[in-house]
Amino acid sequence: MSQTYDKVALIGLGLIASSMYWAMKREGLAGEVRGYARSSETRDVAREIGLCDSVCDSAAEAVRDADLVVLCVPVGAMGAVAEEIAPHLKAGATVSDVGSVKKAVIEAVGPYLPDNVNFIPAHPLAGTEHSGPGSGFAELFDNRYTLLVPAQNTPQKAVQKLRELWEGIGAKVEEMDAEHHDLVLGVTSHAPHLIAYTMVGVADDLRRVTDSEVIKYSAAGFRDFTRIAASDPTMWRDVFLNNKEATLEILGRFTEELFALQRAIRTGDGDLLHAYFTRTRAIRRGIIEAGQDTDAPDFGRVKK
Amino acid sequence: MSQTYDKVALIGLGLIASSMYWAMKREGLAGEVRGYARSSETRDVAREIGLCDSVCDSAAEAVRDADLVVLCVPVGAMGAVAEEIAPHLKAGATVSDVGSVKKAVIEAVGPYLPDNVNFIPAHPLAGTEHSGPGSGFAELFDNRYTLLVPAQNTPQKAVQKLRELWEGIGAKVEEMDAEHHDLVLGVTSHAPHLIAYTMVGVADDLRRVTDSEVIKYSAAGFRDFTRIAASDPTMWRDVFLNNKEATLEILGRFTEELFALQRAIRTGDGDLLHAYFTRTRAIRRGIIEAGQDTDAPDFGRVKK
Repeated sequence: MSQTYDKVALIGLGLIASSMYWAMKREGLAGEVRGYARSSETRDVAREIGLCDSVCDSAAEAVRDADLVVLCVPVGAMGAVAEEIAPHLKAGATVSDVGSVKKAVIEAVGPYLPDNVNFIPAHPLAGTEHSGPGSGFAELFDNRYTLLVPAQNTPQKAVQKLRELWEGIGAKVEEMDAEHHDLVLGVTSHAPHLIAYTMVGVADDLRRVTDSEVIKYSAAGFRDFTRIAASDPTMWRDVFLNNKEATLEILGRFTEELFALQRAIRTGDGDLLHAYFTRTRAIRRGIIEAGQDTDAPDFGRVKK
Repeated sequence: MSQTYDKVALIGLGLIASSMYWAMKREGLAGEVRGYARSSETRDVAREIGLCDSVCDSAAEAVRDADLVVLCVPVGAMGAVAEEIAPHLKAGATVSDVGSVKKAVIEAVGPYLPDNVNFIPAHPLAGTEHSGPGSGFAELFDNRYTLLVPAQNTPQKAVQKLRELWEGIGAKVEEMDAEHHDLVLGVTSHAPHLIAYTMVGVADDLRRVTDSEVIKYSAAGFRDFTRIAASDPTMWRDVFLNNKEATLEILGRFTEELFALQRAIRTGDGDLLHAYFTRTRAIRRGIIEAGQDTDAPDFGRVKK
């Protein structure tokens, strides 16, 4: 595949940035990639493992002359980073991000950026429960969606170029507006994460069931929740604080529905439960048919 | 490994029974294994794929002369099956089950069984989202726990023999009493399943987020829930109806905790959220250290 950007800057060097770097290099999509992380420890690790062509000691240095700057920091840190890099951006550059919420990032970042750069917010729907500079791998985006949320007045050519980068590193790309993005992700990601965190917290709290029992007997269902609830705490704190409205709305719906099922259990309404569980089974089939998960039992954990 | 039982009867031929059969055969642990399923379609499939040494057309025929009878039917069907087989059980036989709740099964099955058989309830903490006679595989129990819930007056020798069978097919075996079992499983399995079913149901209901979007963008977290929510509807209906008390108690705790986190989101209490998410991350590490899940990112779905 041919190069899409000559110079790329990755600000923040966690799971997403490091995976982007390895994938861009695998495909030869970027000329020089410079990286920056606020923590000197992270920068040291990056240098050690060869993450980025060069690791800079300031964000300003990293973005200088860059054709594409990707903000890969927690959502709550986006505004401060934008303020820091704004004076150093090259005219005509594209600034993007990989944050899990879009309305709040646009509001935080947009005001700092000069008029002569194109801000094209993005969100790759890919990740694992691991984090940090050592957690990335080139295949992370393969067959996963990346959502672009361009403003209406963004030049089509700039959007197209960013699309080509994401497609080049394996992703399927779609565009949507920020409000819709935040609602969809509230359902498919933010509410499920909060629920998983809660369930794991409850299990940890229950004094009559010792920690060791919860852990030993986790294969019965619980361990799936613990994977999600092992995701990066800072990233997720920021997601919830910055997608409040949609998350709280969906959690409200969730509680309402949970109460209905609890009542069915209490009153012994087996028909309601059976019909409900039959309906949810169909959704799983849809996900497998759409190529978004494996049909192997237990996510393929068990090797036959 | 040497044979533990000469004649074994499996009543109900779903995921657990079929996995037991393949595992027992692999290890040469049972002489002759007879199977029975209520549905003639299931019996046909079993005969076709060679599941069991012989498939009988009645439960009475299957249990005749059996040294071990394992009830592998949904919890709600256990009582009726026990009534049906009771007159045909061999003196000195062991009757066991694989139900996910134990108090209700003991109450349903116990009264029907003659005094000259040993009833040793059991629960293998293993399964996948697949069901039916074709879903079993010999490795299902490898390194998973099986809990035995023997009554106090059960001869130790009979318990030991059943333990050897389970250990022989790969499981780690522990004993506990029925009440404690139902509480522990309420936490590690029943509440998480109901929560997953609910979250998937809510996503399906949300009209502004089309089905196709929920499915396409599921990799962001939601798809983990759909695997659990794809589990067998009949089995799970019966679990909830038969472990009402513990399930409802834990769901009450869960809701309380969820409300606290919702309030933290609403009021912007980032410190509370961050501390909570850091605590839950530690539990995941415990599960991995205990050998009860893989540390590979995303359950190893992504092949590096």
